Amino acid sequence: MNTDIAEVIIRPEGSLQILSYQEANQLSDATQSGLNEILRQCALAVLNTGSNEDNMLTLLEKYQDFDIMVSVKGRGVQLIIKNAPRHAFVDNQLIVGLKEHLYAVIRDLVYARNDVLDSGQFNLLRSHGITNAIFHIARNAQLLKANTTPNIVVCWGGHSVSGEEYKYSKHLGYELGLRNLDICTGCGPGVMKGPMKGAMLGHGKQRYQHGRYIGITEPGIIAAEAPNAFVTELCIMPDIEKRLEAFVRLGHGIVIFPGGAGTMEELLYLISILLHPENQDIPMPVILTGNEASREYFDAIMEFISETLGAKACELFEVIIEHPRDVATKMKFAMETVRQDRKASSDAYYFNWRLTLELDQQQPFIPTHENMANLDLHKDQPAYKLASQLRKAFSGIVAGNVKAEGLREIEQHGPFRISGDADIMHAMDKLLQKFVDQKRMKLDASDYNPCYTIVHQE
Amino acid sequence: MNTDIAEVIIRPEGSLQILSYQEANQLSDATQSGLNEILRQCALAVLNTGSNEDNMLTLLEKYQDFDIMVSVKGRGVQLIIKNAPRHAFVDNQLIVGLKEHLYAVIRDLVYARNDVLDSGQFNLLRSHGITNAIFHIARNAQLLKANTTPNIVVCWGGHSVSGEEYKYSKHLGYELGLRNLDICTGCGPGVMKGPMKGAMLGHGKQRYQHGRYIGITEPGIIAAEAPNAFVTELCIMPDIEKRLEAFVRLGHGIVIFPGGAGTMEELLYLISILLHPENQDIPMPVILTGNEASREYFDAIMEFISETLGAKACELFEVIIEHPRDVATKMKFAMETVRQDRKASSDAYYFNWRLTLELDQQQPFIPTHENMANLDLHKDQPAYKLASQLRKAFSGIVAGNVKAEGLREIEQHGPFRISGDADIMHAMDKLLQKFVDQKRMKLDASDYNPCYTIVHQE
Amino acid sequence: MNTDIAEVIIRPEGSLQILSYQEANQLSDATQSGLNEILRQCALAVLNTGSNEDNMLTLLEKYQDFDIMVSVKGRGVQLIIKNAPRHAFVDNQLIVGLKEHLYAVIRDLVYARNDVLDSGQFNLLRSHGITNAIFHIARNAQLLKANTTPNIVVCWGGHSVSGEEYKYSKHLGYELGLRNLDICTGCGPGVMKGPMKGAMLGHGKQRYQHGRYIGITEPGIIAAEAPNAFVTELCIMPDIEKRLEAFVRLGHGIVIFPGGAGTMEELLYLISILLHPENQDIPMPVILTGNEASREYFDAIMEFISETLGAKACELFEVIIEHPRDVATKMKFAMETVRQDRKASSDAYYFNWRLTLELDQQQPFIPTHENMANLDLHKDQPAYKLASQLRKAFSGIVAGNVKAEGLREIEQHGPFRISGDADIMHAMDKLLQKFVDQKRMKLDASDYNPCYTIVHQE
Amino acid sequence: MNTDIAEVIIRPEGSLQILSYQEANQLSDATQSGLNEILRQCALAVLNTGSNEDNMLTLLEKYQDFDIMVSVKGRGVQLIIKNAPRHAFVDNQLIVGLKEHLYAVIRDLVYARNDVLDSGQFNLLRSHGITNAIFHIARNAQLLKANTTPNIVVCWGGHSVSGEEYKYSKHLGYELGLRNLDICTGCGPGVMKGPMKGAMLGHGKQRYQHGRYIGITEPGIIAAEAPNAFVTELCIMPDIEKRLEAFVRLGHGIVIFPGGAGTMEELLYLISILLHPENQDIPMPVILTGNEASREYFDAIMEFISETLGAKACELFEVIIEHPRDVATKMKFAMETVRQDRKASSDAYYFNWRLTLELDQQQPFIPTHENMANLDLHKDQPAYKLASQLRKAFSGIVAGNVKAEGLREIEQHGPFRISGDADIMHAMDKLLQKFVDQKRMKLDASDYNPCYTIVHQE
Repeated sequence: MNTDIAEVIIRPEGSLQILSYQEANQLSDATQSGLNEILRQCALAVLNTGSNEDNMLTLLEKYQDFDIMVSVKGRGVQLIIKNAPRHAFVDNQLIVGLKEHLYAVIRDLVYARNDVLDSGQFNLLRSHGITNAIFHIARNAQLLKANTTPNIVVCWGGHSVSGEEYKYSKHLGYELGLRNLDICTGCGPGVMKGPMKGAMLGHGKQRYQHGRYIGITEPGIIAAEAPNAFVTELCIMPDIEKRLEAFVRLGHGIVIFPGGAGTMEELLYLISILLHPENQDIPMPVILTGNEASREYFDAIMEFISETLGAKACELFEVIIEHPRDVATKMKFAMETVRQDRKASSDAYYFNWRLTLELDQQQPFIPTHENMANLDLHKDQPAYKLASQLRKAFSGIVAGNVKAEGLREIEQHGPFRISGDADIMHAMDKLLQKFVDQKRMKLDASDYNPCYTIVHQE
Repeated sequence: MNTDIAEVIIRPEGSLQILSYQEANQLSDATQSGLNEILRQCALAVLNTGSNEDNMLTLLEKYQDFDIMVSVKGRGVQLIIKNAPRHAFVDNQLIVGLKEHLYAVIRDLVYARNDVLDSGQFNLLRSHGITNAIFHIARNAQLLKANTTPNIVVCWGGHSVSGEEYKYSKHLGYELGLRNLDICTGCGPGVMKGPMKGAMLGHGKQRYQHGRYIGITEPGIIAAEAPNAFVTELCIMPDIEKRLEAFVRLGHGIVIFPGGAGTMEELLYLISILLHPENQDIPMPVILTGNEASREYFDAIMEFISETLGAKACELFEVIIEHPRDVATKMKFAMETVRQDRKASSDAYYFNWRLTLELDQQQPFIPTHENMANLDLHKDQPAYKLASQLRKAFSGIVAGNVKAEGLREIEQHGPFRISGDADIMHAMDKLLQKFVDQKRMKLDASDYNPCYTIVHQE
Repeated sequence: MNTDIAEVIIRPEGSLQILSYQEANQLSDATQSGLNEILRQCALAVLNTGSNEDNMLTLLEKYQDFDIMVSVKGRGVQLIIKNAPRHAFVDNQLIVGLKEHLYAVIRDLVYARNDVLDSGQFNLLRSHGITNAIFHIARNAQLLKANTTPNIVVCWGGHSVSGEEYKYSKHLGYELGLRNLDICTGCGPGVMKGPMKGAMLGHGKQRYQHGRYIGITEPGIIAAEAPNAFVTELCIMPDIEKRLEAFVRLGHGIVIFPGGAGTMEELLYLISILLHPENQDIPMPVILTGNEASREYFDAIMEFISETLGAKACELFEVIIEHPRDVATKMKFAMETVRQDRKASSDAYYFNWRLTLELDQQQPFIPTHENMANLDLHKDQPAYKLASQLRKAFSGIVAGNVKAEGLREIEQHGPFRISGDADIMHAMDKLLQKFVDQKRMKLDASDYNPCYTIVHQE
Repeated sequence: MNTDIAEVIIRPEGSLQILSYQEANQLSDATQSGLNEILRQCALAVLNTGSNEDNMLTLLEKYQDFDIMVSVKGRGVQLIIKNAPRHAFVDNQLIVGLKEHLYAVIRDLVYARNDVLDSGQFNLLRSHGITNAIFHIARNAQLLKANTTPNIVVCWGGHSVSGEEYKYSKHLGYELGLRNLDICTGCGPGVMKGPMKGAMLGHGKQRYQHGRYIGITEPGIIAAEAPNAFVTELCIMPDIEKRLEAFVRLGHGIVIFPGGAGTMEELLYLISILLHPENQDIPMPVILTGNEASREYFDAIMEFISETLGAKACELFEVIIEHPRDVATKMKFAMETVRQDRKASSDAYYFNWRLTLELDQQQPFIPTHENMANLDLHKDQPAYKLASQLRKAFSGIVAGNVKAEGLREIEQHGPFRISGDADIMHAMDKLLQKFVDQKRMKLDASDYNPCYTIVHQE
């Protein structure tokens, strides 16, 4: 039984309506130089929102007949979509929020290709060039709002969490919303959705117009973490590193909920930045929080960080269990600190230009078996560098769990081999095992088959 | 320990800022001719939102020191509020939605007093005069929107329902919201809140701007059913009869969730209108709906209606259990029927002028012991008239359960005595007992003490 | 040749769409108790904008077949207009600005009748009651904007001026507009139109959104001074006295251009207020201004005021010839003085509650021959009282020149007889003769036939 | 006496606030590769609006100290402007409309440089590549509005016209405005300003919100025709050819007022397009119009066209003298024809993709002495090609009259030499002489010194 929508033609309203012939051709061009294949994957992910699937390959297989073409014959653009998932529709009409997500996908794919990657405008081999490219992509996506004061809370955490954790994230979102704080997440389900849903209700009670629900994703992860329909500002960064950098440049504070390997990747990324000598004086409030049941999870994380990166790393953030109102109030107050710091240093409110990132953190890390084996997981380096290496290790694990590329790699060559200092390996082993025990590795976690092997060197 | 907010001064933004000296004086005048006492009660109810209290006397006792004064000294109005419930505040700031509710209370109390009751403009002893007054109050509250097509779904049901029933109402609200339908309820908690919350999320996904969450209440019930903070358009009608009429004149379709005596009052009121000979050709979609657990409740109601008012009354509406998507789709389609009917008959989209009501249904029914005893609960009259009498019986029971006046009456004179045809009395007894069994009579239903006695005549 | 538009049916958009049956009936009721006759006159005046006619009787005669009916059969109100002047239409469509004027007329006539005159809400025999009524009418017409700082410049002056004077008023309006000041006038042609036209261009250059072009008129004068189409906020006060009071309560500064008897009436009215002992400390910037050619006119006025009311009266305002930029800059600065004064005294920004007016100034002065003969034009009274008496004398002359009632009086009983102290009479005679010489009495001034006789007592 | 504003710092509101460091550096970089010099020239032109200067060199000389720097240190961009013309300010505040023009200049200079000229995205050697670039620049300037129906009237004509001609253009603009038509001009003074001013008043009367006053210019002409402050949408195209193409791609109808050589250039450009075989079926209403006094001018033009391009060219447009209402009504009706044609051919409403232009018309024509001498002004070619050659001849004359480059060329090498078929030369000589006689060549036309020599070959 095929319950998909055979064909639907959409005329975008608003600015997307205005594509040039050339752009429309690119989007419909299924060759290597065209954008159709990546558009197709992202569009399918967008329309698949609300499903429980987090495996890109499974998804593509399930919807093999799914197709999207872009035409500018006529007054503006038409999207012709074939065999789309039925749950994206209400009474045969595509949900408007998802329509907007489709337009965002098109906008960002076209811009990234033509104006960033192919234009030669940006030196992507230099740290500043990459940051500049991110600035331009974010600006083109209209994420940069002038005349606003700092109030974006980035929420990180797993897309696959328990019902209670989800509920907690919703409650915290509600408290943040009551304080007119905006939400930015990785835009998928789980704790990427909960805070937005809660904030929308809080904003409603406060009659806070134009509340922002920003979702930042990238083509490699979008299928596993399909943008939830609450996201009102969706942005597709070209890769995971630019996505992570966008979070820290755009956000004014960060809340970390329970998650799995992906959340760990984000946390380590953040630590490697905050430990960087150049960034010591830049306020960036970070709170790890969850319901009572997640206490064990956070304990495991803190233990791991303490053992691998030392006590100083643990001081970069606060852990608060089960007090959403306190977390929200702290974030609200921290916003004022951030504002004063930005003002004092004449930095923009809408983009954290001053934060120093190493090129090593910014360049795409390709989780091949070779790159994973070559990670420098030793303590004879500054903690911020080690944090960056650890980040990559977890990045590889995420890829091996849910990303199309990574899944293929593992299928072909078996699990990644990760090696390094014995105590680091030991800590890692322990942490990952806990994630597996707590079923935090994948959605269909019942039979988790590790995509890595920790190599304990003798 | 006093956790109330000692004093807060509020400067309304927007139109409320502009009261005349005279109106401000009225609002601060605590004598019989002033409005301060009623303002104080309504304001307290508004600020008490989210609490579980539904007894006006208890509420007034608990917040004896609560006070509200209105001043126009200075640029616009100031509200000085003393000893308000703390949960109306976030970080010591009154929630904006509640602020708006306060202004709505002021707007409607002033208008009802000066322009409706005291102005002599309306003949409140005639059916049309009453309808006209309701039109004016609703217009002054800006509930009448020109240039919109029919899409207001009135949701009735209990303020005191089970968690599952609440969840179901939220789910249905979500489905209605996904279809860009607006919600109008009695504005309290329970199933008056659920559909609004759900619709807000559905509207959000559809980027439906300016979704309407209309709450219509009256001074006598507002404390028991404090407006929930999702209500964006609050209107205080002068009494329960005008409130009920407002529902049927403004709404384009009606959904009835499980409730108790109040819901029964609403349903009987509706039946008495829809059975009226003059209203036979006016489409008014009505669906009774709830989750699986509420099936028993609806069975009891249908049985009661069938036994007392006959099969024809049962055909006026549909009962649908557990299919929120179907209910929403049916409502959506019915809206088009309503639109075409209004268009064909040149009736306004925003006010159902054509509906005929009997003066008997429109004039305030004061549930004194005498009036309750005198109800004409016999079958030797047209069914629509009997329905109206039955409505009053349930109105009295609601008053005896939760309204300040009614509670005092019962305290002084004991339970109301209700008598009539034996089979009607029997049916009523049976139904009310089921309500008690199902704990649908009051919030603190554990020890429900009936405010009525069914007199089974020999 | 009949070039009028035979019949046109208008469906108002927006709030006017929502009249009740009762109100529509009133508006279509041509009997004494109905509003149709006054609606017809005002509507005709509105549609006659841009013509050179300033005689109500001529106008009514010319458009005898003009008719307007209001119907609420159907979705909202319909206006059925017959035989309307063609120049109110562009390609057979009524100009939108004029449509809005029609709605304003309806809104104000209905409100004034039902809520002010017939409701008993206001004690119109007391000074405060009258002021309160004006507040309510202005509020209902949405003239009172909260959250704005003082910036309304009232522009007074003749509807019948020379091309150069008109041009000057436009230039000054432009300079006021460049400074984001709003304009309020008597809403007719001539210098009531010039400043609005100029300000609209100045506002445009400054991208000043929502510039306000407020026109305040009354049924007796509206035909002679048909609202120009630039007026975006039209308000019909019940009579000339309420109109004048509305100007001084709403305006924050006053500019007086050359005019005739009407302008003199306004100036004397203003002087009688500003000389009042209670109003000594209330800042109210007043500038008399015009082009070089108007110098003579202002000299005549100043001489008259000096001779009749004394030097102190002359100090209440400044006369500036030919420096529009200076006038505008002075007004801009004065706004800040007004703001600080209002703030210090906690008075509203949008309504000058503190200004003291005498009941004598507020009650309608009916210019019958008897009342005109009985004016107390002697110096043995406080100057502010004499100013008020003089104001009435000029009010009578305006009526005798252009108002329907006055014109009829003069037709029947000959010119008004005005008497008083010899030097006052002398000054008056001299001033009026200059007005006649300067052709400032009427539009068709070629053959001005005085409606008054100055009685020089021996 | 220096009356300029010594230094002013401007913080743009809105989207311009968000420049990247790199872009700000480009704008402040005064070297060849930077944008500062061109920014300085354009900015000076913008701020010099309203002056009577139309000579770029004189202007630059007069304001040698004028300087503009762009800084992103701090929250968003700062513009530091030194020694700006005083008349751009009101009470020391830069007029907001001019501020917006400055931002538009910055936006377009940056975009044209980075995304069009340097990005390699567009093949500017191909006709479609140029059209595509224009599309992108216009889109980036937000000139392309989806969801609007055709209603843009392009008004061409001289920046230096008589008072009566200006007044007529204002009157026509008013009539266009009353019909809710938008205006697009070359954005300078004269008849580029009149229609906008008139339309603004017409739009005001019709309460037509968001009326569009589009000005399209280019760096070479902006000084001679400084954008008037009514322009609300300013776009700087890279050169005159792209500017002309933008007019015909964006406009839906064209009105041509009296002008001089520049207007002639525009008209010939238009003729060469409309005569093109591919464009025969594309409706493009064109009306030449002016007051009575301009009849002679239009006669001269029609004669010239008839003699050089033949009768068919004369049929492409209508000449209407002194009937602004008729012109406006015709344009209004023609809009519907355009709409239906676009709909039938599925072309966009906001960009006339179907119009065929020859590369020869699109590529910048540099009016060197050599290029001018080499023009192919002979009749042995299709009329549309000859029209294009004639267009270039007039383009050179405009450059020699008012553009910085052209003025320098003439200073150094003497007048351009123009040669061709005898009767063409004769016609040209006659026409140009009439322009000189009618003082239509320059603003300071008193002593016009021709920048060309017509070579009459033997």
